[in-house]
Amino acid sequence: MADLQEMGQKAAAVKFVLQKMNTEDKNRGLLAAAERLVERAEVILSANEEDMKAARNHGMNQGLQDRLKLTADRIGDMAEGLRQIAALPDCIGEVMEQFVRPNGLEISKIRVPMGVIGIIYEARPNVTADAFGLCFKTGNAVILKGGSDALESNKAIVNVIREALEECGIPGDVLQLIADTDRKVTIEFMKCKEYVDLLIPRGSGGLIRSVVENSTIPVIETGTGNCHVYVDKDADLDMAAQIIYNAKIQRIGVCNACESLVIHREIREAFLPMLKRALDSHQVELRGDEGVREILPNCIPATEEDYGREYLDYILSLKTVDTVEEAIAHINRYNTKHSECIVTENQETAEQFLNEVDAACVYWNASTRFTDGFEFGFGAEIGISTQKLHARGPMGLKELTSYKYMIRGKGQVRA
Amino acid sequence: MADLQEMGQKAAAVKFVLQKMNTEDKNRGLLAAAERLVERAEVILSANEEDMKAARNHGMNQGLQDRLKLTADRIGDMAEGLRQIAALPDCIGEVMEQFVRPNGLEISKIRVPMGVIGIIYEARPNVTADAFGLCFKTGNAVILKGGSDALESNKAIVNVIREALEECGIPGDVLQLIADTDRKVTIEFMKCKEYVDLLIPRGSGGLIRSVVENSTIPVIETGTGNCHVYVDKDADLDMAAQIIYNAKIQRIGVCNACESLVIHREIREAFLPMLKRALDSHQVELRGDEGVREILPNCIPATEEDYGREYLDYILSLKTVDTVEEAIAHINRYNTKHSECIVTENQETAEQFLNEVDAACVYWNASTRFTDGFEFGFGAEIGISTQKLHARGPMGLKELTSYKYMIRGKGQVRA
Repeated sequence: MADLQEMGQKAAAVKFVLQKMNTEDKNRGLLAAAERLVERAEVILSANEEDMKAARNHGMNQGLQDRLKLTADRIGDMAEGLRQIAALPDCIGEVMEQFVRPNGLEISKIRVPMGVIGIIYEARPNVTADAFGLCFKTGNAVILKGGSDALESNKAIVNVIREALEECGIPGDVLQLIADTDRKVTIEFMKCKEYVDLLIPRGSGGLIRSVVENSTIPVIETGTGNCHVYVDKDADLDMAAQIIYNAKIQRIGVCNACESLVIHREIREAFLPMLKRALDSHQVELRGDEGVREILPNCIPATEEDYGREYLDYILSLKTVDTVEEAIAHINRYNTKHSECIVTENQETAEQFLNEVDAACVYWNASTRFTDGFEFGFGAEIGISTQKLHARGPMGLKELTSYKYMIRGKGQVRA
Repeated sequence: MADLQEMGQKAAAVKFVLQKMNTEDKNRGLLAAAERLVERAEVILSANEEDMKAARNHGMNQGLQDRLKLTADRIGDMAEGLRQIAALPDCIGEVMEQFVRPNGLEISKIRVPMGVIGIIYEARPNVTADAFGLCFKTGNAVILKGGSDALESNKAIVNVIREALEECGIPGDVLQLIADTDRKVTIEFMKCKEYVDLLIPRGSGGLIRSVVENSTIPVIETGTGNCHVYVDKDADLDMAAQIIYNAKIQRIGVCNACESLVIHREIREAFLPMLKRALDSHQVELRGDEGVREILPNCIPATEEDYGREYLDYILSLKTVDTVEEAIAHINRYNTKHSECIVTENQETAEQFLNEVDAACVYWNASTRFTDGFEFGFGAEIGISTQKLHARGPMGLKELTSYKYMIRGKGQVRA
């Protein structure tokens, strides 16, 4: 456990260096790291091969092996990611508000780094470079705890980046990796409140739950997405079919994919057969309530549990409603507050849905797949928050910052 | 434990009513509650007398008894507080940002309530009305857990407010009180993540620590204040003495009071005797390092522990430094990131201090006592945050809100 203390102290020490670092120096560090990743690709690939060998021996499944595997191209993508972060504007130092009080005090609210950010993630080595880049650009020191199966890859990536930074005169300790794979150390890390200002878990629901339950450090939950599309009675049905097809099929394993269709009773007959034809092309399994099964008799009956599930698979649950109010109530009951959509040509109905559905992102006539930092134009993304504190929805660079008040006086005292 | 589930469900149900409530209706509720508190003062006072009787029997100390005690005047102040909150602008629904993406998606970032807020506090019944008012104005349902010693008073206040709301057609469940004094229930409450979006502890360091350690709900820490004043070599010494006198003496038991003086070695001889004369009027005990004791030989030696203490008493620790860098390092090591001040006529030194000291509020030539929602012009205050996530420094109404993205399209799907 002594190691974590030491890492915390080192991070706390460099955060003061980072706070003072100008944009040019930060960008120079990012570009040097990018260049070095490509130059030293062989070292990283051979470390990754060690991880891959162990993974094959342990019988890791193909999907996870694919996430773990690095190639020269993937290392090139990591480097490109860092270059893109370098090209983004620096928000640190921004004057967010400024006002003068009647007693003459001048109060400025200034954007500052969080300080030290901890990131706990699974065996995806590309996250290592990405998380570093986003934290570093926003002046934060970062302590990473990646999945144990990627340890050798992560060590190699972190060493290469630190080396590049040190050559630019930037202390390598702005980026530290917890190399101990003991779960107890990870739990202990979640309690390093003295040194770490923010903890972000990235990964499965189980990982996120463990962090929420154990952490004493403030957490941003980047959660699961049980996303709905509601097809209203006034919907353009062709548009509805295209949106659902896109939200369900375009990438099935992601948190902003559509998992459930809510449909107005009046348009069942016209819409459901049309939707089924579109989804049949990908053998999407439909699980519906009675109202749906009256139209699609072969549809599997949906259970209560189906409505609460994030399938991440070629499965869609379906629910019939009689009013938009019923649709909103159903969604507010089962959703994970991620992304929800209404398809309708009726503005009044749309505005009611936009206002009353409780979710980070509520769409009118567009696919839920747009919930993404890049699609929102943030130029980067550290995750999608499903909590309401601090940040909600796609989180870019600004969401990794805090603020401070600077108050300038002329000797004012309080009466 | 079943009760908490039920309370959570009720709060979650009314939050949808609250989200839709317009400003006029919220203000009508606040004014009705204010009026009813005054009308029903007798009922509240007699409940309070029960609490006071028990407190005297248990030998509660005078300071705590004073916080617990209600009078007709104090109830009048509670009512006035609610009226002031009614008079403040309503920030819910505010368009915080709005932009159009190249694909035509119109994205609006809209201020919304948090949802359900939990507040855990000590035996100060005035907090009950105040916390209700701030949460209600921002469209949040609130579940209160006050100190057990104030239970009868809190029950009476909550009943009166709920009654007034119900008569305005507002569901009383927007305000609920946990009446079970078992500590286990409080701990269980901190884990009601399914229903509660934000938990705010208000009170002693021990209370706050317990919430941080046990809560799975996102927390805003309203922490302790070990605040410093640094008197630079270029300080106006009269101004410095006035600021320290105010920050130390004006109210000693508060988190933004000055607990420690950092002084540049060059001005010790001129300043310390002058400061001592000012503070002697209140018998302030000085605890200094060698550099101070060379000038004030009777000063008690300061220990390491002194520099980390929030005295909340007529005691001041003193530390000598040779440079502003040393002052900044000392403060960043011992402070609680609350409020810090430099007194200097040198703008360059001041800007360095403002930038490099890590605290919610950093002052140049003004008393730390201004860290306060009212003094900042927020018109209200739920507490002073010492964490960096979500809110930092004085928290007014806006800090009790979240946001959501509304995205309006014309059938866009992701490529």
